Amino acid sequence: MNRKMIRYIVGSLLVIEAALLLLPAVCACFYREWKQLAIFLGVAAVSLGIGLALRLRKPENTRFYATEGYMSVALCWIIMSIMGAAPLLLSGYYDNPVDALFETVSGFTTTGATILTDVEVLPHAVLLWRSLTHWIGGMGVLVFILAILPVSGASSMHLMKAESPGPSVGKLVPKIRSTAAILYALYIVMTIAEICALYIAGASLFEAVNLACSTAGTGGFGMVNSSCGDYSAPVRIIITVFMILFGVNFNVYFLLYSGNIRDAFRCEEVRYYFGIVLFSSLVICLNIRSLYAGTGEAWLQSIFQVGSIITTTGFSTADFNTWPELSKAILVLLMFIGACAGSTGGGMKVSRVIVMVKTIGKELSNITHPRVVRKIHLEGKPIEHEVLRSVNVFVMAYLCIFAASLLLVSLDENSFTTNFTAVAATINNIGPGLEMVGPMGNFAAFSNLSKLVFVFDMLAGRLELFPMLILCTPGMWRKR
Amino acid sequence: MNRKMIRYIVGSLLVIEAALLLLPAVCACFYREWKQLAIFLGVAAVSLGIGLALRLRKPENTRFYATEGYMSVALCWIIMSIMGAAPLLLSGYYDNPVDALFETVSGFTTTGATILTDVEVLPHAVLLWRSLTHWIGGMGVLVFILAILPVSGASSMHLMKAESPGPSVGKLVPKIRSTAAILYALYIVMTIAEICALYIAGASLFEAVNLACSTAGTGGFGMVNSSCGDYSAPVRIIITVFMILFGVNFNVYFLLYSGNIRDAFRCEEVRYYFGIVLFSSLVICLNIRSLYAGTGEAWLQSIFQVGSIITTTGFSTADFNTWPELSKAILVLLMFIGACAGSTGGGMKVSRVIVMVKTIGKELSNITHPRVVRKIHLEGKPIEHEVLRSVNVFVMAYLCIFAASLLLVSLDENSFTTNFTAVAATINNIGPGLEMVGPMGNFAAFSNLSKLVFVFDMLAGRLELFPMLILCTPGMWRKR
Repeated sequence: MNRKMIRYIVGSLLVIEAALLLLPAVCACFYREWKQLAIFLGVAAVSLGIGLALRLRKPENTRFYATEGYMSVALCWIIMSIMGAAPLLLSGYYDNPVDALFETVSGFTTTGATILTDVEVLPHAVLLWRSLTHWIGGMGVLVFILAILPVSGASSMHLMKAESPGPSVGKLVPKIRSTAAILYALYIVMTIAEICALYIAGASLFEAVNLACSTAGTGGFGMVNSSCGDYSAPVRIIITVFMILFGVNFNVYFLLYSGNIRDAFRCEEVRYYFGIVLFSSLVICLNIRSLYAGTGEAWLQSIFQVGSIITTTGFSTADFNTWPELSKAILVLLMFIGACAGSTGGGMKVSRVIVMVKTIGKELSNITHPRVVRKIHLEGKPIEHEVLRSVNVFVMAYLCIFAASLLLVSLDENSFTTNFTAVAATINNIGPGLEMVGPMGNFAAFSNLSKLVFVFDMLAGRLELFPMLILCTPGMWRKR
Repeated sequence: MNRKMIRYIVGSLLVIEAALLLLPAVCACFYREWKQLAIFLGVAAVSLGIGLALRLRKPENTRFYATEGYMSVALCWIIMSIMGAAPLLLSGYYDNPVDALFETVSGFTTTGATILTDVEVLPHAVLLWRSLTHWIGGMGVLVFILAILPVSGASSMHLMKAESPGPSVGKLVPKIRSTAAILYALYIVMTIAEICALYIAGASLFEAVNLACSTAGTGGFGMVNSSCGDYSAPVRIIITVFMILFGVNFNVYFLLYSGNIRDAFRCEEVRYYFGIVLFSSLVICLNIRSLYAGTGEAWLQSIFQVGSIITTTGFSTADFNTWPELSKAILVLLMFIGACAGSTGGGMKVSRVIVMVKTIGKELSNITHPRVVRKIHLEGKPIEHEVLRSVNVFVMAYLCIFAASLLLVSLDENSFTTNFTAVAATINNIGPGLEMVGPMGNFAAFSNLSKLVFVFDMLAGRLELFPMLILCTPGMWRKR
């Protein structure tokens, strides 16, 4: 266990977080929220101090293995969340440390589930910090560190693997450091594009920045209690388009950027993803048409909610709690499917679902043609045994964590639908579920134990289960 | 495709079903229910006629392969259910053919979900036939046919594999035919033991026979509207004990019978099974203690319901719809776990769950000790790759069928909890779920489409998914 290296990475993280905390401080300055200014500057100073102290001695041996990769990622996310919760707690809008932690983890993991019943009373600086946590968590803070930290190739692959969503990690270019930089560049350009589009469509600059950060990370924290329900049609359309775009595998954007347009349009996962979005929106649109003035409005509502749920953003323009059961059932299933691998979205990922369905097809053809050896293909290439195995193990671990969480949360005596969708909404990093945790509800009524279970689920979901499981495995901290 | 052999097997099945239909006919005679006597005799005659016609020409080539095994099993179960539904429909207590088919499939698959709001008006012959379907379906009718039919060794293995529950089929003795005979002998002895026990405890002979058949098959059709709620404590205790015993892998009874007591007690799956039963009962008992007069009564209620749900029997002595959420959540999870492989119970089976959990453990240890090659062990032996793969594929197919069923059933506009637990209760062959399909509810209010979805789910669950999937695969009927 290369503890020195883990310490060094955590130190770097805290320095970066200190820098990020300055952004809401600037915002507080601009809106003359002096108390918030003091809080954010103070927390930034503490974060910087601890960070620099941890980075004081550079480790000689920068190599480390998969275990350290998983450990660093899990630890970084937990420490980052605790530090990020400090300004929320100090702001006085959160009752206790667990609530503040829940909200911050919900932010960084891009879940977007909130503890607050009224977000409209929050100062601008706190609102911006909430949106920023989404933006940071979306692409992953370790990916950012990789772009600047001197870690050897194999070691950085372990880090990247532990933080990136999806069954396998594709390097865009031979060097991990350049891959990370390209990903962040694409991410920044798309976010700026959305800010501009929203601003042109009539949103204020502050609204545009917050909504864009929240959409980019597929987060879902809103700035008003109605989430996105009160925005004009153009703003809602722009958010819909960008939600769906941020749910696409970023490799595709890299292919487009490098002029490889044919390969980009051939990407199997993305084609299935758009197929699922269109098909689900169509069915829901037909199902809810009678609830809205015209087919156009029903279609807008339907595709907004489908895009919001499948990309695990969690914005809403309507209370889908009141929709027909078929529409609700489709939305619940979309929660589990999630966005593409390599996007900022959560869930099980479209590619894993494709692999699952193809596995069943292969089994059926194995039974009928036992002598024909077939391999499952994805993106035109046969899937390696290792990837298949990892998908299987992921599904198993997912089901076990889900079951255990459901049991613990049931202690609170809320309804089965509330508990089930609350666990689904947190482990898939979505935000809203059904009934008590519906789009117009929140997580305030849960006990502290349940909130901590959700904190675990959100982190487990964002980091694709294993980093958090490794952290909980006894004897993992032994020196080797 | 050896169609002649499939035809021959279906013919044999119908002849056996004709013989079985004579039992309720005798019962009708005894209770002077002349209309029922005529119906059962008539249907038996038709079944015999068609069966003999199909068996007229013995196929020269008795060999066949996995596809034919799966196909025969799926076809046999469907035809057996249609023929078995005829007396129910003719009896006049069922409104339409779909209802009668649902009830019969629910019987043969040992689900025990009913369409009727009032079962107390049913004639004795119909009640007995319902219980008998459980008893026949519990051990499997193909297993019975295997004991008498001239099928070559490899071919019969394909049949056995397709009908027996669990990830791998263990032959007790070298010959399949003897294995099948031993299994049925054990089954009959245990059923008779329960009949005697219930009779001694004060049940009438008719009650004892029905309850024992229903328990033996882990079915769950009751004879009164309160299921088992009104029986005396001794009767309830006997049912509890036998429910749990019929959920045990029958291999263990064979080991006990052949004097191999040490091996019997060493069986890993059975030990986990008893562990889960005891632990769940204990937690539920603590959770519901305040609802009942004393800890003893709470314990009795708790272990009865746990035994009933984990073995997928579906009897109830209390309306667990009114229990606290934790207890309900535990029961819902037990629905999915199910009984042991090689028992008469349904669900995913304890051994599959053990394999799932061990797979996760192996993955965690792989991450931390990447150079150590470990194999997963079950029952002291390393699990073959083929079994692991089959468990994975099973879980994938299970999730997909579950999701598709949930969507279709949602068209009926019942609540999410009702839909979710109704699908869970049918695919796991349990019977009751929560809310509308709770222990005091029934499946009458669903549309015909939903009932047919449940029919598919019950058959798929009982036959462990693949026979039904193979039957639905296009191009499967081509001659080879």
